Amino acid sequence: MKKNIPTPAIERLCSVYHVLEEMEKEGVTAVSSKEIGVRIGVEAHSIRKDINYLGEIGNGRAGYEVGELKRHIKKHLKLPEHTKACIVGIGRLGTAILHDNRFASYGYDVVAGFDTNINKLETIKTNVPVYPAHEITAIVKRNRIQLAVLAIPADTAQETADRLIDGGIVGILNFAPVVLHPVSGVAIRNIDIVNEFRILSSIANI
Amino acid sequence: MKKNIPTPAIERLCSVYHVLEEMEKEGVTAVSSKEIGVRIGVEAHSIRKDINYLGEIGNGRAGYEVGELKRHIKKHLKLPEHTKACIVGIGRLGTAILHDNRFASYGYDVVAGFDTNINKLETIKTNVPVYPAHEITAIVKRNRIQLAVLAIPADTAQETADRLIDGGIVGILNFAPVVLHPVSGVAIRNIDIVNEFRILSSIANI
Repeated sequence: MKKNIPTPAIERLCSVYHVLEEMEKEGVTAVSSKEIGVRIGVEAHSIRKDINYLGEIGNGRAGYEVGELKRHIKKHLKLPEHTKACIVGIGRLGTAILHDNRFASYGYDVVAGFDTNINKLETIKTNVPVYPAHEITAIVKRNRIQLAVLAIPADTAQETADRLIDGGIVGILNFAPVVLHPVSGVAIRNIDIVNEFRILSSIANI
Repeated sequence: MKKNIPTPAIERLCSVYHVLEEMEKEGVTAVSSKEIGVRIGVEAHSIRKDINYLGEIGNGRAGYEVGELKRHIKKHLKLPEHTKACIVGIGRLGTAILHDNRFASYGYDVVAGFDTNINKLETIKTNVPVYPAHEITAIVKRNRIQLAVLAIPADTAQETADRLIDGGIVGILNFAPVVLHPVSGVAIRNIDIVNEFRILSSIANI
């Protein structure tokens, strides 16, 4: 069923899931589609429509049970318990992401870093092993790494993505300012800050 | 008219715009909706639908003139010539963004940084002036800064966003792992890497 859910709905459902996590921490046990909508800036009917993609559960107008809705989303979006990830490019951005200490508690294990600058490898202070970039395909394959963050310049992004995919990567979060070529069976999210500024400019009607 | 364009369409149109920029550099002068779609992983009819939101221009099946389509998107999405931006939180991530040297060439001037750690301000090596966080509202107002990047921890993100908005900020790119409360007239993009991993996991069907 999940295959029929449009990507924008998946994006919103992941935001809903995050809001439910926050509500659980706040001790909230029941929530309406309207309350969820207010938190993420989306109309209530749109929230209900997104949740309906996942099959039958409660009634958005009357309210959802927070824990139940959270488990429902997790199950139907198949959010994983444990997924291995790697960071490619240990420059300023890659280092910042490598030091994000939230991944493990959300089920994502960053098990490898890669950089082309071999001399830099010894000086990087991290608990995650960092390998030279030419080992990407082998290390990804050997460790069955599924997700990758690309934090490298535009000019080498596509060939690096190809090497990751050759190793078996199925999801790439791309911060390089280039739109990666789509590959069947591989999920790609392109995040370019200039592009995000443009989207903001357009929505804000600057 | 722009107000009627759904956000997912604006997001795709900004990706199309970026692809057209790349094509211009490559010397490509004509392109079909199908070719654009292949580059960004979207069906051709969806590309044509998005472009049609902007009003009449050429025919997607027959092809668009690259420069003309680029100007058309820029005009109708009101992509600005010059916009002032600031970075809040000069930690690892904020520093990485501050050193991105592409902003100026795309019309975005990063004119200020902010950090709560006053002692750190003198040691930050950058051409952009960095101010203490308590001056956010005043500096944003005085310099008419329109966009802000939030690169701070979750617990202070909402109050900092409120201070930015008080100063007149109309667009926030939020990297703090918390969904900011929507405010009328302010565009907000929440980018949480854990959330992006979840979206990738779900789309990739891990």
